[in-house]
Amino acid sequence: MNAFRVGLIGLGTVGQGVLRVLQRNAGEIAGRAGRRIVVTHAAMRDPARLRDCDLSGVQLGTDPMAVVNAEVDAVVELIGGISPARELVLAALQRGKPVVTANKALLAEHGNEIVESAGRNGAQLAYEAAVGGGIPIIKALREGLAGNSIDSLAGIINGTCNYILTQMTAKGQSFADALADAQKLGYAEADPTFDVEGIDAAHKLTILAAIAFGMPLRFEAVATEGISAVTAQDIQLAQELGYRIKSLGIAKRNSLGVELRVHPTLVPAGHLLAKTDGALNAIRVHGNAVGQTAYVGRGAGGDATASAVVADLVDVARLQGADPRHFVPYLGFRAEALRDKRALTFAEIESAYYLRLRVADEPGVLRAITSILAELDISIEAILQKEPREHEDATLAIITSQIPEHRCNGALEKMLQLPFVRPGASRLRVEHFE
Amino acid sequence: MNAFRVGLIGLGTVGQGVLRVLQRNAGEIAGRAGRRIVVTHAAMRDPARLRDCDLSGVQLGTDPMAVVNAEVDAVVELIGGISPARELVLAALQRGKPVVTANKALLAEHGNEIVESAGRNGAQLAYEAAVGGGIPIIKALREGLAGNSIDSLAGIINGTCNYILTQMTAKGQSFADALADAQKLGYAEADPTFDVEGIDAAHKLTILAAIAFGMPLRFEAVATEGISAVTAQDIQLAQELGYRIKSLGIAKRNSLGVELRVHPTLVPAGHLLAKTDGALNAIRVHGNAVGQTAYVGRGAGGDATASAVVADLVDVARLQGADPRHFVPYLGFRAEALRDKRALTFAEIESAYYLRLRVADEPGVLRAITSILAELDISIEAILQKEPREHEDATLAIITSQIPEHRCNGALEKMLQLPFVRPGASRLRVEHFE
Repeated sequence: MNAFRVGLIGLGTVGQGVLRVLQRNAGEIAGRAGRRIVVTHAAMRDPARLRDCDLSGVQLGTDPMAVVNAEVDAVVELIGGISPARELVLAALQRGKPVVTANKALLAEHGNEIVESAGRNGAQLAYEAAVGGGIPIIKALREGLAGNSIDSLAGIINGTCNYILTQMTAKGQSFADALADAQKLGYAEADPTFDVEGIDAAHKLTILAAIAFGMPLRFEAVATEGISAVTAQDIQLAQELGYRIKSLGIAKRNSLGVELRVHPTLVPAGHLLAKTDGALNAIRVHGNAVGQTAYVGRGAGGDATASAVVADLVDVARLQGADPRHFVPYLGFRAEALRDKRALTFAEIESAYYLRLRVADEPGVLRAITSILAELDISIEAILQKEPREHEDATLAIITSQIPEHRCNGALEKMLQLPFVRPGASRLRVEHFE
Repeated sequence: MNAFRVGLIGLGTVGQGVLRVLQRNAGEIAGRAGRRIVVTHAAMRDPARLRDCDLSGVQLGTDPMAVVNAEVDAVVELIGGISPARELVLAALQRGKPVVTANKALLAEHGNEIVESAGRNGAQLAYEAAVGGGIPIIKALREGLAGNSIDSLAGIINGTCNYILTQMTAKGQSFADALADAQKLGYAEADPTFDVEGIDAAHKLTILAAIAFGMPLRFEAVATEGISAVTAQDIQLAQELGYRIKSLGIAKRNSLGVELRVHPTLVPAGHLLAKTDGALNAIRVHGNAVGQTAYVGRGAGGDATASAVVADLVDVARLQGADPRHFVPYLGFRAEALRDKRALTFAEIESAYYLRLRVADEPGVLRAITSILAELDISIEAILQKEPREHEDATLAIITSQIPEHRCNGALEKMLQLPFVRPGASRLRVEHFE
């Protein structure tokens, strides 16, 4: 059988990884796909930036649309960002060409349009590499857990945040210092906003939630908080209370709708997610039949992400020429079965909370604070008061019961009005997983 | 579109789970598969053993071959064992009917014949439920990691062994006591041989190794050791040395061939596999592109296993009528790409070892033992001598460097010839995962 010809748009870390993996594992990949998979066309903006890369047999240019229009059996989009990625992907689909992409921003923000175009043109669309690097989490959700109604999922899906929080935990570093180190080591971008403010994780969560719950992609519905406000002291206090602080993407559904949120989270120290350190990713999925399952692996890196792209290519090559009804539905559910769901705002979401207060070292402080909580019917799950050094304020950390956010905010406001409570409290969410 | 009609053979815990999951999640399953999936025919030996089970719309009988011959779109085989499961599966495939099975013994021992028949008849064959309960590990290996050359995998794939070892660790129980408790609680069978001697895990490892390495199913090539010889003292000493003892199925390949082995194993306490307790399963897979990935979930139970069976049914329903070249190859690789590989014997396998010796409390003991190791060029990675109680023997635990088994055995033999070494040493393998 003829080789399956791939057009590669973008030859950065991941693009070069795809080229390398397809070459290195050519024999096994052909054994799995039933035919060879080879890159025949590629485009990159600046070919001078190519590193050690075997481009024999590859027609390399700088015009990505030329790759879309070339005689290729599938287009792999790895340039990231919205434009021109959106135009290129739509152009390929309109020509009926299968698209494999790792572009989570594009899918989260324009995925419904792309899915619709893929369906209209009967073209395959695959995006395993968009979430969790090489972990086959899209496949697990779209296919492996297809017998389940997915109740919830939660994951460490941004390696930069996890690296920074891991360093802060291990070294007692401040956020700023840990970020600077991460930037030096290449774990964080020069402009880290996308990662540390949770936008990248929100993109990924949008995709996971759509295929878990059978809803359209709803990026604007994700409530997002970054990790820049987490202090070394919060991490220390959380540890003393038996928790680790992780930036999680969380999707849950209940009778009111769905919760889609990304925020720093206290996780019980014994839980798999608490023990997933460094640049690793881990995703926990709860289904009503399977119970809890978890998936762990490298969330980034050229070869790990390339592993996911190539797995998609094997799927796409195998289904070339098949009737589209044999494809896995793009979002796990057939288009006609997708149902939009109401997304809860942060104010509506119920959660347990960690509160940290700086208080004067005076008698009656604890009584006043616990009175506020009692009046608002908020139970205290754990409390920790740290001895102040001489002439300093004391620190108080409280873990509350599960309450709606507006009640937590109300309590915190009241506490901050007390004369002996200093400004600058911290409030983080706590997740207990069954 | 018409409903996809399923014939169910076996209505035990898993069979009833399949019925229940298909009913409970009917809407979402139809949304994913594009049509309803319903059990129309079922057979069980003793219908009196049915528990709370909604059989409306199901034609129930006692003759399994009648289910194979009925107007069904797929046959689900859940009776386990070799005969009559083999005859039933082959009969269904000969009629071109897709088969979904959870039968690891059948696949491990007769899988090549079954795969050959499926291929000849262009019928689908799916077996996600055969390994790891509801964890989609077959899908991860056959499809999700298709871009990789898999170097090795290691997993906790028998819940009974893991439950017993976890209890022994937590309670300091003997193997016999922990087994008796497990039997009382239903985690172990009245005749536990299959589980505790590693045969069930060897069946599962046979399947994992075939799809990981692209080789035929070679059950007879698995070197297997049970957990019955592990003592509470071994578990205690291992903990003091920084390890947990787990029964692992391990598959590795190197230039000489493949290692397929099931045995109690010392695992570094920090590793995910060491922290997978109770009846959970966990599988770690190392691919040359993706690096290390891991998959965790419930390894048994009606609904968890049913989750895997139903996922297979969704795949099978979606591909009904498709050209067989669009199927995922039965063993991950196309038949013509499968290559048998030489399986190493225990004697050839290299490993680090844990040795426990009972020695007289005399001067010169340690020197004599370490001399034997030095003469045989075996390095000591760790050593622990426990203070004896008065008039008792001392206990010595040693972790060796990586050596071929015959050299370890040679050293142990020499040690046991020393006058102050008592009979009854223990020797377990140690795995360090990169």
